[in-house]
Amino acid sequence: MGKMLGKQSVIFENPPVIISEASVVGPKEGEGPLSDFFDTIWKDEKNGAESWEKAESQLVQQSLEMSIQKAGLSKEQIRYLVAGDLLNQLTATHFGVRELNIPFIGTYGACSTMGLSMGLASMLIDGGFADYAAAEASSHFCTSEKQFRTPLGYGSQRPLYATWTVTGSGSVILGRNEPERKDGRQTVVVSGMTTGAIVDYGIKDAFNMGGAMAPAAAAVMLAHFHDFSRTPEDYDCIFTGDLGYYGAELLQKLMEEEGYLLEGHYRDCGTIIYAKEEQDTHGGGSGCGCSAVTLTGYLMKKLRGGKLGRILFIPTGALLSPLSSQQGESIPCIAHAIVIETKGYCRMAERS
Amino acid sequence: MGKMLGKQSVIFENPPVIISEASVVGPKEGEGPLSDFFDTIWKDEKNGAESWEKAESQLVQQSLEMSIQKAGLSKEQIRYLVAGDLLNQLTATHFGVRELNIPFIGTYGACSTMGLSMGLASMLIDGGFADYAAAEASSHFCTSEKQFRTPLGYGSQRPLYATWTVTGSGSVILGRNEPERKDGRQTVVVSGMTTGAIVDYGIKDAFNMGGAMAPAAAAVMLAHFHDFSRTPEDYDCIFTGDLGYYGAELLQKLMEEEGYLLEGHYRDCGTIIYAKEEQDTHGGGSGCGCSAVTLTGYLMKKLRGGKLGRILFIPTGALLSPLSSQQGESIPCIAHAIVIETKGYCRMAERS
Repeated sequence: MGKMLGKQSVIFENPPVIISEASVVGPKEGEGPLSDFFDTIWKDEKNGAESWEKAESQLVQQSLEMSIQKAGLSKEQIRYLVAGDLLNQLTATHFGVRELNIPFIGTYGACSTMGLSMGLASMLIDGGFADYAAAEASSHFCTSEKQFRTPLGYGSQRPLYATWTVTGSGSVILGRNEPERKDGRQTVVVSGMTTGAIVDYGIKDAFNMGGAMAPAAAAVMLAHFHDFSRTPEDYDCIFTGDLGYYGAELLQKLMEEEGYLLEGHYRDCGTIIYAKEEQDTHGGGSGCGCSAVTLTGYLMKKLRGGKLGRILFIPTGALLSPLSSQQGESIPCIAHAIVIETKGYCRMAERS
Repeated sequence: MGKMLGKQSVIFENPPVIISEASVVGPKEGEGPLSDFFDTIWKDEKNGAESWEKAESQLVQQSLEMSIQKAGLSKEQIRYLVAGDLLNQLTATHFGVRELNIPFIGTYGACSTMGLSMGLASMLIDGGFADYAAAEASSHFCTSEKQFRTPLGYGSQRPLYATWTVTGSGSVILGRNEPERKDGRQTVVVSGMTTGAIVDYGIKDAFNMGGAMAPAAAAVMLAHFHDFSRTPEDYDCIFTGDLGYYGAELLQKLMEEEGYLLEGHYRDCGTIIYAKEEQDTHGGGSGCGCSAVTLTGYLMKKLRGGKLGRILFIPTGALLSPLSSQQGESIPCIAHAIVIETKGYCRMAERS
C-alpha cells in the first residue's frame, strides 16, 4: 500500500526490490568508459537484423529475456511488463515484447521512460497488483536520427550542443520480496517516486534537448525535495537522465537560483556513458537507453557493491515530435524522480 | 489495496468511483445516433485551430477541463493524469495537457488506450497512491488518416472493410470516494481489470484492423472469464472498443469456438457510434476516441440512469506503425478488459 507524500510524491510501505537488471548496448557504448559494466555489447548497430528498427526490437527482447532469466523466474511469473521507446507507436517495444506473452503496459515518456516505467511497476507491486513486474526502456542511434533528425546516409552536420542517442536497452525485474540472495551483495529497493508534470519553457530548437529538459528536471527535483523534506545531501548522488554537458550545467544553475547546491551530489547519465574527449559526441549521450543502461549496467553494480547507498534517479524526456516542431511548436518536457537505495538505507519508509 | 485474481486480473478492494466524465466530438460523430449523449459537438473538424493536430490537442484539453469541472475539483487536486492518443510521440496529448500542470503518465496502447489509462488510474487510486486521478484518450479522423494512411487531400479510396477514425476525446475523473451525489443517479465504479498481453495472428493488411484485433479481444475476454469465474451472462453487456462490423463478427465466431455465446450480451462501440446506412463509414468507427466517447458519452449515462448495471469495457488496439507495415511486419494487437458497474452491483468485491 502506498503512502502519498506532499503534492506529487509517494513512498512505498514495502519498497519493491530490484531483483535483477540487464543491459544490452551497441558498439559505441561498449567502447566507452562503462564498457566493463554492461551485460552484452553488440559488435555493430544492426546485429544481423534486417533494419535498424528490428535491431532495436532485438535489444528490447534480449535485455528482457536476460533480466527475467537472471531473476530466476519464468516469464509466466511476471505479472506486468511496463515499457516504451522513442519510435512512433512504440515500434521497437511492441515487436520486441510480442513473443513474451506478458500483460503489457506501453508507456511514452520520451527519454524519461525508464523512470516512468520503473515507478509504475513499483506502484503496481506495492499496491498489491503484482508479485513481479518488469520495466524496460530502449533507444537506438540510427532509428532516432532517422525519425527525429535526418537519415544517417544524408551525412548532416549536428550542432555542437546536440546529444548522441544511446543504442541500448536496460531492464529490471521488480518484486515484492527478493529470493534469498547468496552472493553477499546488497539488496536494492525502490523506496519512493515523485511524478513530474509537463514543463514547457518555450525552447524551439530541437537539437537543444538538454536546455529544454533542464527546467523539467529542476521542477521535479524541487517538488521531490519539498515533498520528502530532503536536500541533495540526503543522496549519495542524484543522476539525471540525458541532459548532456550543457543541460546538466543549466540544471545546476537553475537549482542554485532556488538555493540548492548540487555540486558533489550530482551527475548526468549523458555525461557518464561516453568519454568526452575520445568519443566526441558533442553534447553527450541521450535517448531512453541512456539512463536505462547507465542505471542497469553501472549504477546498479555500485549499489549492489555498497559503493552507493541511496540515489535519486531522474530520467528526463523531451515530448516533442518532428511534426510539432515543423508546426513551430516549443518543446514540452517532463522528468520523474525515483528513489533507489540499498535495503539498510530505507530510513524514510521505516520512520513513516 | 488490490487483490490479484487468476493469471492476469485484479479486483479492487475499494472500487474507485467514476466521479465525472466528459466527451467532446467532431461533427460526424455529432450527426450520428449518439448525438444527444455527447457534452460538446464541434461544428467542424478544426474548430478554429491552425492544424488538425492542434485541433486534436484542443479536444484533449476541453474534455479534461470539463470533466475536472464537472467533478467539482480543482486541477491541483488531481494527482495523476493518465492519457494518450494515436499520434507519433503522443503529440495531441502532450500539447493538450501541458497547461494543466498535473503529474503526467503517458500511455500508448493504440485504440486500447482508454482501457489502459482507466485501469492504471484505478490501480493508482486503489493502491493508495492518489485520491483523484484523471484518464483520457483521443483520436481525430484527419490526423489519423494523414499519419497512418494518406493525407485527405489525396482523395484515396478506402476498402469496404476499413474503419473510420472517430474525432473525439473522452475523459473520466476517478476518485477514492464520491462527493455526495444529490441528483439521484447511480454511483458508478471500476471494480476490476484484466490486462492484455500482445497477440499477433500474422495479419498484415493495415486496413483490416478489426480482423487483426479480434483475436486480442478474444484472448483478454477468455482470460477475464477464467480469472473472474464469470460468463457473458454476468454482464448486462460487453462492449469492445473499435472492431467494427467485420471484427465484431469475427470475435463472436472466435468466442463461439471457445464455447461462449456472446449474442445478446455484446456490442462493439465502432458499430454504435455511427449510423450504418446513413453515415456509411464502411467498417464502422475506430480510434482511441471511439471507445472513449462511447463510454463517457453514452454508456455512462446508461449506467448512471440504471439502464445498465454492469458492463465489461474492452478497448482494442492495433500496435502497428506505418514503418512496421512498410517493413512487411504483421500487426501486433492488444486489448484490456475493465469492469464498470453501479455501486449496488459490487458483489464480487464484497464477497472476497
